[in-house]
Amino acid sequence: MQKDYGNMSQTTDELKRQAAERAVEQVQSGMVVGLGHGSTAIYAVRRIGALIQAGTLKNVLGVPCSQQIELEARKLDIPITTLEENPVVDLTIDGADEVDPHLEVIKGGGGALLREKIVAQASRREIIVVDESKLSPALCTRFALPIEVIPFGWTTHLAFLEGLGGRPKQRMASDGSPFKTDQGNFIIDCKFDPLTTPSALAGLAEKIKARVGIVEHGFFIGIASEVIVAGTDRIRNIRR
Amino acid sequence: MQKDYGNMSQTTDELKRQAAERAVEQVQSGMVVGLGHGSTAIYAVRRIGALIQAGTLKNVLGVPCSQQIELEARKLDIPITTLEENPVVDLTIDGADEVDPHLEVIKGGGGALLREKIVAQASRREIIVVDESKLSPALCTRFALPIEVIPFGWTTHLAFLEGLGGRPKQRMASDGSPFKTDQGNFIIDCKFDPLTTPSALAGLAEKIKARVGIVEHGFFIGIASEVIVAGTDRIRNIRR
Repeated sequence: MQKDYGNMSQTTDELKRQAAERAVEQVQSGMVVGLGHGSTAIYAVRRIGALIQAGTLKNVLGVPCSQQIELEARKLDIPITTLEENPVVDLTIDGADEVDPHLEVIKGGGGALLREKIVAQASRREIIVVDESKLSPALCTRFALPIEVIPFGWTTHLAFLEGLGGRPKQRMASDGSPFKTDQGNFIIDCKFDPLTTPSALAGLAEKIKARVGIVEHGFFIGIASEVIVAGTDRIRNIRR
Repeated sequence: MQKDYGNMSQTTDELKRQAAERAVEQVQSGMVVGLGHGSTAIYAVRRIGALIQAGTLKNVLGVPCSQQIELEARKLDIPITTLEENPVVDLTIDGADEVDPHLEVIKGGGGALLREKIVAQASRREIIVVDESKLSPALCTRFALPIEVIPFGWTTHLAFLEGLGGRPKQRMASDGSPFKTDQGNFIIDCKFDPLTTPSALAGLAEKIKARVGIVEHGFFIGIASEVIVAGTDRIRNIRR
């Protein structure tokens, strides 16, 4: 049971790659594929690009979940489409920040949760790919919930979230200015106590969603059809 | 019971003015006041401006519900504040497109429904001012429901709304391009059959609100504390 802790960071990246590439085995020629955003999903995008280049995958169209992933996909010569042209996505491969035993997840660490959720909503199947460090006994144990808000009146949400037991904090960009999403909205990262039951999770999600001015939250409930977890010993496919 | 139908348009404007000015009687010095958007609420804004100019109202701060109303208020020398500076609004006066017997309303004909609803959510009291032509036995009898949507993937909402029994149509600007809200989003105007029961209204509103990518809908349920209706014979204050 020896582990090379000195090599952990490289190992985590390697696990992310393994999970993502395992998911890409389910991509078939002719599919419309949702291209997730983030440090794990990018490995799926690169693998899809390589398989298209090699001629193994043909007539695949990608729906990018962020402006950044659209740029990456174009560099890799993946043909791009939109939900306007293709309103139904066959398969989306995306990462997550925290995954609970019921396959409910938190997303939004990369700030793309709204487009990721719109694409997920349009997808027949959503495969979530993670390294094992993302597994958690209950959502909000390890990760603050990202919440996308309209800038107009956004500070009124702070007291509202505190009233729900949260500890909200506005996300800042590396230059010290407020982080802005692809839609020009703000992100509030809100810590909550761990949500140990499905009803606690559903209840909190519903209250946040009902708030006017909150565009979307990072709970993806009932959305993942499959989670692929790469650990140091093996890769597991967990189906709902 | 003779009516001067030839004079109807001028009469309607006069009724709008009467309803709005009746509401302004409830504005007191020192209040933070929400300034509604639209052809009826503008009369309230003008009246508040005049009372500040006359010295009758002192230390009033306005929270505008749109960029357009902010410009108008500045022209009238009404001191402006934001929800960041003043998260609680004492009183908001706003118009509506359709009002049912339970004081539930449809708003958004002017395209400002999101900011109007954020300000309403922050308000202790919301007074809706209308001329009698806006009264309706059931919402959606006379008016299509305005729905603000994120541009990304917006066309996927059309089939969704049709599945709810709606007849959706994108709102266009006078130059033929898509209408854009103050947030840069689109508006879908969606006709529904009349909602004859509170549960039908609540159920439809909940389904629309739950959709990812729909920012907000124009149903204001449980929000109006009072509706002031100006008719050709009298002005009525109807309280919840």
